[in-house]
Amino acid sequence: MDDIHPFDEIRMLLANLPQPSRESVEAVRRRDAELTKPPGALGRLEGIVEWLAAWQDRAEPTVERPLVAVFAGNHGVAAKGVSAFPASVTRQMLDNFTAGGAAINQICKTFGVGLKVFELALERPTRDMTESPAMEEREAAATLAYGMEAIDGGIDLLAPGEMGIANTSSAAAIYAALYGGPAARWTGRGTGVDDAGLARKNAVIDAALAYHAGHLSDPLEILRRLGGREIAGMMGAILAARLSRVPVVLDGYVACSAAALLHAMDADAIAHCVAGHVSPEGAHAQVLQRLGRAPLLDLDMRLGEGSGAAMAIGVIKAALACHRDMATFASAGVSGKSEP
Amino acid sequence: MDDIHPFDEIRMLLANLPQPSRESVEAVRRRDAELTKPPGALGRLEGIVEWLAAWQDRAEPTVERPLVAVFAGNHGVAAKGVSAFPASVTRQMLDNFTAGGAAINQICKTFGVGLKVFELALERPTRDMTESPAMEEREAAATLAYGMEAIDGGIDLLAPGEMGIANTSSAAAIYAALYGGPAARWTGRGTGVDDAGLARKNAVIDAALAYHAGHLSDPLEILRRLGGREIAGMMGAILAARLSRVPVVLDGYVACSAAALLHAMDADAIAHCVAGHVSPEGAHAQVLQRLGRAPLLDLDMRLGEGSGAAMAIGVIKAALACHRDMATFASAGVSGKSEP
Repeated sequence: MDDIHPFDEIRMLLANLPQPSRESVEAVRRRDAELTKPPGALGRLEGIVEWLAAWQDRAEPTVERPLVAVFAGNHGVAAKGVSAFPASVTRQMLDNFTAGGAAINQICKTFGVGLKVFELALERPTRDMTESPAMEEREAAATLAYGMEAIDGGIDLLAPGEMGIANTSSAAAIYAALYGGPAARWTGRGTGVDDAGLARKNAVIDAALAYHAGHLSDPLEILRRLGGREIAGMMGAILAARLSRVPVVLDGYVACSAAALLHAMDADAIAHCVAGHVSPEGAHAQVLQRLGRAPLLDLDMRLGEGSGAAMAIGVIKAALACHRDMATFASAGVSGKSEP
Repeated sequence: MDDIHPFDEIRMLLANLPQPSRESVEAVRRRDAELTKPPGALGRLEGIVEWLAAWQDRAEPTVERPLVAVFAGNHGVAAKGVSAFPASVTRQMLDNFTAGGAAINQICKTFGVGLKVFELALERPTRDMTESPAMEEREAAATLAYGMEAIDGGIDLLAPGEMGIANTSSAAAIYAALYGGPAARWTGRGTGVDDAGLARKNAVIDAALAYHAGHLSDPLEILRRLGGREIAGMMGAILAARLSRVPVVLDGYVACSAAALLHAMDADAIAHCVAGHVSPEGAHAQVLQRLGRAPLLDLDMRLGEGSGAAMAIGVIKAALACHRDMATFASAGVSGKSEP
């Protein structure tokens, strides 16, 4: 069966995605109309509950087992000096996640969100994208499949996050390949490169784009040539969540490159995703516009780790609590709007 | 001592306000620089912790006893048909708060925030501002003083909220008096008036502005002529919080009218306040600009009750958790930025 292309399975999954439940959304709207507040007064909180209901296919959606799934990978291109931090920090930060010492640990604890870390062959960085495709086809496909395991265990909300020194360079290259333009249109300072570092980063990404020119029309080919394992893992996680009717909260600049690749394959593939936070990094706001997503939060965070999405899960929990536990006009004895 | 004007005490308090602690801010910055993240990567979360430290005057600030204090009053002008809901709803919603059935109850429960309701003579609405000052001087001053009690009990963060049918009309009149222009520049649909209702609301507010013309140069005089008891109560609460070094999170359209009156008396009087949420109601975004405040959240909420500020307390709690509990580069064995 060697004539089956490693990416074929992913393409087949995309052809048969579950769709939103209109019935569950209608049930949420009926209850919302009875709650002790003016119609629409909870703004985006109301739409959040409809979104949960649509994708969970539950008239009474839940956020009892939300999960931040952090995928971590190392990048060969880090050797080109595109990051302010050495590549060894990817492993060190994973140990920090495990010990409970990173920002994402504190945010998850604050809002009662689970955290799992998926380590993707850190000792074997992807190849340098300026000299070779970052991954083989089988490698990229296997990592996508591995990412699909993130949704195991009965979770009801997923936020894919990432860690990987140099991965903002990978994400910028993906955006340039998908949407055009030189690197400088998409890059930012990542973890904090200086002016010289940013110029070097742009030159490296432009070199990678030139090297792969003519091979960047297929999003899965863009993934394997310019991406990284954590980006493949997040793509798998987003896709698996859809198949399991788990709504997804998108994190920032790097995490959205996984969503953008899926979106380029089929815009419907990320219909179950909301944007948790818009980053000041690079052109994230432009990416969200292309994905048709207005972010829930804009707190100037540019950390990755799923941290922006985890902040948004706090908002989502409060939205659901209002919907689920508010009194109705009838039960509370509150008068409705005056008749005109 | 009858020659002491009822407002004199308030004016005296404003003259001697505690100032932010530079030492505590410096201590926060020193610790922030050691945390396992790139400098600045937590964006506004970092500024939030500095703000808490500055006003609490603590190198290790806390948010252990945050409080939403909801002030409720009734408005004589409600009889003019400016709201989509009857005035009886103010009382009914207070009962709903007490029973735990309102949106603010669920948001406070989600984020571990206390909730107190301050009922301000609901059975005796303020006078109709189109025909008379809404309050006597002594009444306004006494309500301000009563509002100062909101910060009793060792709280470390305060969000003043409000409930009062017709109070968006009061707030719009205050903004027009402070910043100029006809009512239509400042009004919105409140709890949901239709086109005819909005036209009526604007006409009523313009009539009030005309009635009081020539007496609107002093913010405390604007308060008593166009305001309401809940607005006076929130002013007192904001001021008392400052005196007790309790940072304040501002809620939406109506709550900010209390902050705007204090700001007009002395811009420094609200230096301890952050804007929790920008409302789509009326010209709230313009008001925040005049107050020099960028909101933490923009979730299209327009409910009052302190609900937008309570959502922001979730963000503030997460910000503090990151600062307090993250590992340092040294303790986690994570490498710092590469030397250039």
